[in-house]
Amino acid sequence: MTPFRVSRRVEFCDTDMACMVHFANFFRFMESAECEFLRSLGLGVHVERAGESFGFPRVSATCDFIKPARFEDVLDIDVTVQRIGKKSVTYGFDFRKAGEPIAKGQVTSACCRVLDGWKLEAFEIPGWYRERIEPYLATAE
Amino acid sequence: MTPFRVSRRVEFCDTDMACMVHFANFFRFMESAECEFLRSLGLGVHVERAGESFGFPRVSATCDFIKPARFEDVLDIDVTVQRIGKKSVTYGFDFRKAGEPIAKGQVTSACCRVLDGWKLEAFEIPGWYRERIEPYLATAE
Amino acid sequence: MTPFRVSRRVEFCDTDMACMVHFANFFRFMESAECEFLRSLGLGVHVERAGESFGFPRVSATCDFIKPARFEDVLDIDVTVQRIGKKSVTYGFDFRKAGEPIAKGQVTSACCRVLDGWKLEAFEIPGWYRERIEPYLATAE
Amino acid sequence: MTPFRVSRRVEFCDTDMACMVHFANFFRFMESAECEFLRSLGLGVHVERAGESFGFPRVSATCDFIKPARFEDVLDIDVTVQRIGKKSVTYGFDFRKAGEPIAKGQVTSACCRVLDGWKLEAFEIPGWYRERIEPYLATAE
Repeated sequence: MTPFRVSRRVEFCDTDMACMVHFANFFRFMESAECEFLRSLGLGVHVERAGESFGFPRVSATCDFIKPARFEDVLDIDVTVQRIGKKSVTYGFDFRKAGEPIAKGQVTSACCRVLDGWKLEAFEIPGWYRERIEPYLATAE
Repeated sequence: MTPFRVSRRVEFCDTDMACMVHFANFFRFMESAECEFLRSLGLGVHVERAGESFGFPRVSATCDFIKPARFEDVLDIDVTVQRIGKKSVTYGFDFRKAGEPIAKGQVTSACCRVLDGWKLEAFEIPGWYRERIEPYLATAE
Repeated sequence: MTPFRVSRRVEFCDTDMACMVHFANFFRFMESAECEFLRSLGLGVHVERAGESFGFPRVSATCDFIKPARFEDVLDIDVTVQRIGKKSVTYGFDFRKAGEPIAKGQVTSACCRVLDGWKLEAFEIPGWYRERIEPYLATAE
Repeated sequence: MTPFRVSRRVEFCDTDMACMVHFANFFRFMESAECEFLRSLGLGVHVERAGESFGFPRVSATCDFIKPARFEDVLDIDVTVQRIGKKSVTYGFDFRKAGEPIAKGQVTSACCRVLDGWKLEAFEIPGWYRERIEPYLATAE
C-alpha cells in the first residue's frame, strides 16, 4: 500500500539560530503526521469507545537528520506502520523536500487504558483499532 | 568520572493534555543539558576560535520513555560522553526523578565548520575540544 | 477588503495539561498567519531586495483569550492590517472556531535593516512593501 | 515590597533564525516566573483545596519587546502583582539582562473552578489565596 502522506510548511518559530528547523521539532512533526494518519482512519491517539478511554503514550522515539530544513520549506512526510505488537505500534516517518531526503524517524507508542487521574495501564490493542492500521504495515522490501 | 548532572523543574508549558511532559520536550531538555555540560568546560555547541566558527548540528537523536514526568517534577539529568569519533560525538542522558528512572536518551552531533550563509561542512573535531570532553567518556561497565 | 484568512488544526503538542491550547501558542499562530499573509503578497518577515536585507522584529504583541481551543479544533484566523506607520506595521488577528470567537490579538513589527552579525537598524518601510499591504488596512467601522 | 525575582538562561531552542529569543517564548517565560512566584507562596496556577480544584486560565497577555535577548543570556525577571480583582489577577513582568531592560509584559488570569471534563466556571478568588499575593501588589509610583 502506498504510504500516507502529509505536507507541512516550516514556520518561523520552528527554526533556531542555526537557521534550520530545531531538531526537537521533527518529533512534533512526526506526532502530528501520526495524528493525521489516524484521523483519516477514524482513529486517534486518544479514543473513547464503549465507555472506555484509550491513549497511546510514546515509549520510544528516534530520528536521523540528513539535511537541514529551512524556513518556508515544504516537507512531505510519509507515514508507514512498521510493526504492530500486542500492546504497541511502531510508526515510520520519511521527511522529504521536493523528493530529497531530509530526515527519517520512528516512534513507538504503547496502548494504554486511561484510568481516573490520567493513570495509565498497558492494554492489548483492540481488534477494531488493529484492523484499520494493519493495511499500512510496511512489507519487507 | 562521575557524570555531569543538571536539574530542571518541569514547567506548565512542557506538559500536554495527557498531563505529562510532551515527549518532544525531552529532546529540548537533552540539548539544554548538553549545552550546560559544554559551558562548564568552556566549550559550546557553537564556538568561535582563531577566526573559525564551529557548530555541532545533530545527526541523530533517540529517547526511551520509562515513566511520565509531571508538572513541577524536578528532573535530574546525568550527561555522559558515549563515544567520540573523528567527526562526531555521542552524548548519553539519564533522566531521573528522586532517583527513579524517567527516560534515557542519546544525541549524536557532527562537528562542522560554519561557512558563509550558514553552510555547514563536516570537519574533524579540533584537538582542544576533544581533550576537554574526553575525561567524561563513559567507560565500559 | 475582506480579511485574509488562514485555517489551522490544533495539534496535540499545542495543548497543555489544562486540556486546551497553551496561551503562548496563540502568538506562534499569529506569526504564522502573518507570514502566510505576507507570502500571498510576495513579501515576508525577512526579505532581500536590491542587495539589502530587511526584517520585521516584533516590538509588541497582545492577545485576549475568549474561549479555550481544544485538540483537533480547526481555527480560522482572519488577518487585517490595523495601522501602517513610517517604520512599523500593526496586524490584527481574529481567531474563530466555526464562527465562534476564540481569541483576538495584535502584533506590531518594526521595519529594520539587517546589518552584519544580525545587528538591526530601524528603517522606513520601503514604498513597494507598503503599497502591497495597504489594501488590507482595516477601515473605520 | 521588593518584587519577586527569578533568573533563567536563554536556551538554544528558545532562539529563532533571527538569532534572538522568539517573541512567543517571552510568554512561556512569564508563566514560568508566575508559577515560581506562586510556588514560593505555597500557591499555584492549579490548586486543590478542601476537595475543590481551582485554575487560573489566562484571559489576556501582552508584551513589549525592547531589546533582543540572545542564546546564553541570563534574564532576570521581576514579578509584581499589578491588580487583584474579584475574579482575576494581573501580574507584571520586567525582563532585564545585567540591569538593561529587555522586555516588559503583563498577564491577566481569571480564577475558575475546574469542573468535570476540564469545564471551567468563573469563581471569586478565595480569601486565603488573595491574602498571600496581596503583599506583592505594586503600589502607585
